[in-house]
Amino acid sequence: MASMAALFTKTPYPPLSHHKIPNTHFAPALKVYIPFSSGRKPHRRLRVSSGLIEPDGGKLVELLVDEPLRDVKKREALSLPRVGLSRIDLEWVHVLSEGWASPLRGFMRENEFLQTLHFNALRLQDGSAVNMSVPIVLAIDDSQKHRIGRSTKVALFDSDNNPVAILKDIEIYKHPKEERIARTWGTTAPGLPYVDEAITHAGNWLIGGDLEVIEPIKYCDGLDRFRLSPAELREEFTKRNADAVFAFQLRNPVHNGHALLMTDTRRRLLEMGYKNPILLLHPLGGYTKADDVPLSWRMKQHEKVLEDGVLDPETTVVSIFPSPMHYAGPTEVQWHAKARINAGANFYIVGRDPAGMSHPVEKRDLYDADHGKQVLSMAPGLERLNILPFKVAAYDKTQGKMAFFDPSRPQDFLFISGTKMRMLAKNKENPPDGFMCRGGWEVLVDYYDSLVPASNGKVPEAVPA
Amino acid sequence: MASMAALFTKTPYPPLSHHKIPNTHFAPALKVYIPFSSGRKPHRRLRVSSGLIEPDGGKLVELLVDEPLRDVKKREALSLPRVGLSRIDLEWVHVLSEGWASPLRGFMRENEFLQTLHFNALRLQDGSAVNMSVPIVLAIDDSQKHRIGRSTKVALFDSDNNPVAILKDIEIYKHPKEERIARTWGTTAPGLPYVDEAITHAGNWLIGGDLEVIEPIKYCDGLDRFRLSPAELREEFTKRNADAVFAFQLRNPVHNGHALLMTDTRRRLLEMGYKNPILLLHPLGGYTKADDVPLSWRMKQHEKVLEDGVLDPETTVVSIFPSPMHYAGPTEVQWHAKARINAGANFYIVGRDPAGMSHPVEKRDLYDADHGKQVLSMAPGLERLNILPFKVAAYDKTQGKMAFFDPSRPQDFLFISGTKMRMLAKNKENPPDGFMCRGGWEVLVDYYDSLVPASNGKVPEAVPA
Repeated sequence: MASMAALFTKTPYPPLSHHKIPNTHFAPALKVYIPFSSGRKPHRRLRVSSGLIEPDGGKLVELLVDEPLRDVKKREALSLPRVGLSRIDLEWVHVLSEGWASPLRGFMRENEFLQTLHFNALRLQDGSAVNMSVPIVLAIDDSQKHRIGRSTKVALFDSDNNPVAILKDIEIYKHPKEERIARTWGTTAPGLPYVDEAITHAGNWLIGGDLEVIEPIKYCDGLDRFRLSPAELREEFTKRNADAVFAFQLRNPVHNGHALLMTDTRRRLLEMGYKNPILLLHPLGGYTKADDVPLSWRMKQHEKVLEDGVLDPETTVVSIFPSPMHYAGPTEVQWHAKARINAGANFYIVGRDPAGMSHPVEKRDLYDADHGKQVLSMAPGLERLNILPFKVAAYDKTQGKMAFFDPSRPQDFLFISGTKMRMLAKNKENPPDGFMCRGGWEVLVDYYDSLVPASNGKVPEAVPA
Repeated sequence: MASMAALFTKTPYPPLSHHKIPNTHFAPALKVYIPFSSGRKPHRRLRVSSGLIEPDGGKLVELLVDEPLRDVKKREALSLPRVGLSRIDLEWVHVLSEGWASPLRGFMRENEFLQTLHFNALRLQDGSAVNMSVPIVLAIDDSQKHRIGRSTKVALFDSDNNPVAILKDIEIYKHPKEERIARTWGTTAPGLPYVDEAITHAGNWLIGGDLEVIEPIKYCDGLDRFRLSPAELREEFTKRNADAVFAFQLRNPVHNGHALLMTDTRRRLLEMGYKNPILLLHPLGGYTKADDVPLSWRMKQHEKVLEDGVLDPETTVVSIFPSPMHYAGPTEVQWHAKARINAGANFYIVGRDPAGMSHPVEKRDLYDADHGKQVLSMAPGLERLNILPFKVAAYDKTQGKMAFFDPSRPQDFLFISGTKMRMLAKNKENPPDGFMCRGGWEVLVDYYDSLVPASNGKVPEAVPA
């Protein structure tokens, strides 16, 4: 991953440390208000400011135990009642430990869980609201609850039986699975990937509390150096003198339509008066469903896209967002946006049907393709974030490249869906020239090639990343 | 209904008119902050003020056409595409027309519908939020949508084919039934009464817009004089020099435990320094499920309770809340509370499992009994309302009357559930002396007696009120 590594050699990082970093929250110096949308009733305006956006709650939460105390905490963990963490639980510990969910300081207690389910927002002491749309909770079963007894602390252990964190001032409350699912996904239909993976067979209790994370969470998959924390990203943006940061969440290979959008966004931000807008290209690195392209392959593909010069390394930071994926559409897109505020982004690019998927039972999309954008634009606690709706890009046959769709000449455009793209790559066919850079496409073909065909000749689904 | 009528003869009303009423929103003169709850983290304080609480959005919305214009509007309605209203739709027109849902000016457009589903609140132009937890929407089917075509207005007709209202600046959007149900009820299990009655067979489109209601909604059931609008209630409270109004929502007969609670609440408010707290005893008058006691019988029962002196007519206003019932627990209790702010109440009494019911499929309550109170206390837009949690009353065998439950001597208390109460009344048995005043109990017995037994000897369920 030469090119991505190169991005970071300019601003070398120590091995991911979680010590306090210099304050990167400049006081806003210049604010220029520019009408934002051409919609009928615009109620958002763009804010041009010279500093990074403040984290939710005013201060980035970091839950890593200071290095000198780690041994003490490890010994303490060994003496406490134990709760085992699944892979997804561990990803949430990671998310919480670095402050992506600031001001949350641990797994949700019931009052936070209820506010998340009902209001997608948490009320702070000062009466203001921060967005929080997806429950970040830890389930335990009856026997674990029994073992915890009257203890006010538990230790969280990973699947190798290493102590990961202490959860203190705990609160144990009922896990209302059906209600959680219904209010988060807007359906209880069987077959929702995250539900099947992390909820259906989870315990009937939730345990909330404040986290003390003993060591930085590492996956040792060769990609840890791309897992920058919000503090590290803020430091990077500050070093680059970013006066705007625009985040692009993705969990798919980057094609030239995406690249066009990102390049065009930067152009628009420059036109608005920003001097140095930086792109945060931010692939999701946690749990994804079986038929998504695994993270390691996506990172290879992103590398090629940068190598081929489709995106400018000078103005792009590639990093991995450690959250697992819910596929909860309008509810989840708020989480994706809110977490990026904490990483310093003040612009968020939102596409059609963000975090959406097909209905698991009915023959339709689970969510209205426009609801994600609409909900995001109205969400409590996200008022400070500028939402940039995705312009539709498609393959322009007259130009032989991806271009913004021109509704006056629809016949000239070819829409290549994700499904279509996957089918072409599986069959080792090529998409039209200009759809994706050659190197990136080859990675995709290699990925599908690497899947051992099942005996019936069909390409099997990939395992979750 | 002598005693209730007596309540109102002191402040006689003209037939329900919807003309502007004198401003009843006094500027707050005296504010005393008193710690409210003995809970671990109290974050609410009681506000003692001499004026009525402001309606949501600052101004009570009233959507009734001025009398001189009614004929013109009626003629206009006859010329427009028609949408037929169900009984429940008509109840919502009633609710909207009088401003219970202020600042809503008609059936929800999509942006209001989405904010309701996701955030239980609407953001106003000034950035503040008002609570709105239950979708107030009007469904139409494909053929109705086709008939409306490109018209910007439709006329709403009741089941007798009388024009009721004009809906203008309309917006037609998809009716995502499953998502609406999941996000409102936290379940999609079959058998939710409101869903079966008003959603399952409703059209696949929703039509939003601004309402112009041609005439006050009347039901001609002998109870219209008890259906006071928020403006009329505010006028009544002002005439009585109320310096606090505490609302008690109910859809069940009043027993002496309720009465004890209401009397005790007044005592507590007096202790806090209020001079004249007024009780709004506010039975729900819209759609209820088949096994609830119908409104007309409940009103007879409430009358007896007042006749028997269990509640003081001088400090009690009995009125009917025209909303239909969702049985949506923590989501709906917010609507019940919010609507009462618009009617001038600044205190809201909340019980265990408000607006709850049994799970329609599983053998358990649909909602955690404490969630309603918790959600209400955290709900956006309800910060101004003082939430008074219901103290548990039960039959104290040592005193032979209803009393607040004393956990130090549980053996002395008898809990008489609604189900138990209904069984006793159905079987013409008497509850313990002191459970309910004699006159009130007789009404209940008469009600169950009035139901013609089915051929199998079982008492059938009542029809919805």
